[in-house]
Amino acid sequence: MQTPRVAGVGLTRFGVHPERTGRDLFAEAALAAIDDAGVDRSSIEALHYGNFMGEFAENQGHQGPLMAEAVGLSDRPATRHESACASSGVALREAVRAIRCGEADVVLVGGAERMNNLGTAGATEALAIAADDLFEVRAGVTFPGAYALMARAYFDAYGGRREDLAHIAVKNHDHALENEYAQFQRAISVETALEAPMIAEPLGIYDSCPITDGASALVLVSDDYAVRNDVDASVAVTGSAQGGDTLALQDRREIARTPATERAADAAYGDAGIEADDVDFAEVHDCFTIAEVLAIEALGFYEVGEGIAAARRGETDRNGERPINLSGGLKAKGHPVGATGTSQVVEVTRLLRGDHPNSDSVSDATTGVAHNAGGTVASVTVHVLEHTRRGEVGE
Amino acid sequence: MQTPRVAGVGLTRFGVHPERTGRDLFAEAALAAIDDAGVDRSSIEALHYGNFMGEFAENQGHQGPLMAEAVGLSDRPATRHESACASSGVALREAVRAIRCGEADVVLVGGAERMNNLGTAGATEALAIAADDLFEVRAGVTFPGAYALMARAYFDAYGGRREDLAHIAVKNHDHALENEYAQFQRAISVETALEAPMIAEPLGIYDSCPITDGASALVLVSDDYAVRNDVDASVAVTGSAQGGDTLALQDRREIARTPATERAADAAYGDAGIEADDVDFAEVHDCFTIAEVLAIEALGFYEVGEGIAAARRGETDRNGERPINLSGGLKAKGHPVGATGTSQVVEVTRLLRGDHPNSDSVSDATTGVAHNAGGTVASVTVHVLEHTRRGEVGE
Repeated sequence: MQTPRVAGVGLTRFGVHPERTGRDLFAEAALAAIDDAGVDRSSIEALHYGNFMGEFAENQGHQGPLMAEAVGLSDRPATRHESACASSGVALREAVRAIRCGEADVVLVGGAERMNNLGTAGATEALAIAADDLFEVRAGVTFPGAYALMARAYFDAYGGRREDLAHIAVKNHDHALENEYAQFQRAISVETALEAPMIAEPLGIYDSCPITDGASALVLVSDDYAVRNDVDASVAVTGSAQGGDTLALQDRREIARTPATERAADAAYGDAGIEADDVDFAEVHDCFTIAEVLAIEALGFYEVGEGIAAARRGETDRNGERPINLSGGLKAKGHPVGATGTSQVVEVTRLLRGDHPNSDSVSDATTGVAHNAGGTVASVTVHVLEHTRRGEVGE
Repeated sequence: MQTPRVAGVGLTRFGVHPERTGRDLFAEAALAAIDDAGVDRSSIEALHYGNFMGEFAENQGHQGPLMAEAVGLSDRPATRHESACASSGVALREAVRAIRCGEADVVLVGGAERMNNLGTAGATEALAIAADDLFEVRAGVTFPGAYALMARAYFDAYGGRREDLAHIAVKNHDHALENEYAQFQRAISVETALEAPMIAEPLGIYDSCPITDGASALVLVSDDYAVRNDVDASVAVTGSAQGGDTLALQDRREIARTPATERAADAAYGDAGIEADDVDFAEVHDCFTIAEVLAIEALGFYEVGEGIAAARRGETDRNGERPINLSGGLKAKGHPVGATGTSQVVEVTRLLRGDHPNSDSVSDATTGVAHNAGGTVASVTVHVLEHTRRGEVGE
């Protein structure tokens, strides 16, 4: 079986770009990835693309062919995948399978989201379609509310307080300071976070990721292709897996844990032949600060109930033993929903390759993980990336 | 590489069920497929699901986990794929890859669509998001209009007239007569078709598929799994491919041909190691009668310009040499968008197994094809199904 390698990565700057169309955003990221890969555009055999709310933001479904056309690949098979905030995570899984099963040697994968043209209220309403319409949305649940329920449940079951969460926001803002693609390149203090307006008790505005427009893209190639064509692709996708859970929180036994992440992580580590302890750093889905806590526990980096103190203790910051969200995370880098999954993999790749502003924090690292979650962690993808020489993994 | 086999199939009756939710429809089809497969539900490892307009019909995105939960599989990875009317065709491709690359042995795949609760005008408006919003929809293009343009272009380039198209509608209504899952089990005459109200010149109401609610599902298993567990799965998916084209008609060189189908067919036949002449019968995407003409030409069954007369000459009916749309097609069986791709594969499987009301028309057949198209044939999947003994294909 072929091992997929990351030959090139591309991002738009994440931020507020209400005037830019999805196709405009995606073309920028995809063309940057193709340029970074140094492969001829005509060698790309397929596009797997993640988008979540195009129906509302642009009255546009069926975005696979549209995005292929935007990058000059209109005669290639192109598919849109949607799993809410994990949309490009699942797109990446399909691209990985296409290479593994020998169907393609060069695949473009990415995602884009246009959100700010809907306004904050409109975007929040559109985001709600990731929850169960009949049993959650009609009862008034929005995502800040749902994650607030999870935070309260966590505090009740395992302890912790708002200040612990504030340290996560402070850390992720700090990590984004030098990231030129980040929506917020600005330091905040614990006091700023704690004194900011409340969104849904106990989550304040600094516990929440922003509404973001942006795109991300990767060119994946098979190990064989990289060797044959002397493509510089030092980072391989060695593990890929997905986990699921009920869409509605009410249908779960416990809402202070995220078993979909546990299942995806177990499967992805098994796929890569590693264990949680082998992971040097990770990009995790911190749509709200509490989500980072739930993620680092479910990924096996902390025992249940222990993740809450990680940022406060400095264990997950740029100087810590296992840095989390060196990109700034969804919190500070931003969260253009359909772009987030592959954007995390772009960041992990750059960190491993050594061309990320925060690469110095992980200069000895060989193994990074990207964790992408949809809804209230009902859909999760986990990807393991390893820095290896071409031809070293696979078969 | 493992060969995927169809272990079980399930359908709801296609028709007008505005009161039924998508999850209700899908659960019925999926549980029927699981029952038909005779596998334990707990053996299912993943769900790949196609849906197109859930955002509009039910304010519901992120339907993968929702549908998994509806069939009691909420802890399994579940993904929604969207490529307009080819949504479950692309879902099937992902399921095929998952089995081929050894990631799973038992996969549930299917699709559902709820449309009639939107009303005809609302459904037509929702369908339009499969076209290019900026360059087609805002200019007033709807799908009946777009296919009417393609029909006119065909008549201009290759000849043909409305009566030729009427024969296709008559044939497909005839094929649906005994299909208990069909929306219309009722014969029509050429005169009825020609005298019916015009929708978009030259397409009348009988040239158009109806607005349909419904669901379809398949249980796919690996060849190894079928042998090990003595699963009765006599039909294998031996070819799977996808083709693409520009989303907007205006960006194409010619609109009386459908190169996305040509590309998908070439690749699927190559994948299966067959040629067009080896195909005994096919289910093709006849959302409008002209679409059947374009499909049978692009699938290599007819030279360009020759497909228009096939139904009139009786070559594609139940007694013809290569029957097309023995299910009744989208025209008479109905077209619940997200369900159509896998529904075609359900029909091909039953025809090959011998348990379809029209199996007698293809009693010597070994090879059937399913052709699923999105938009104005911008996304196409082609699947080749062959009746083979377990263990006969693969490796």
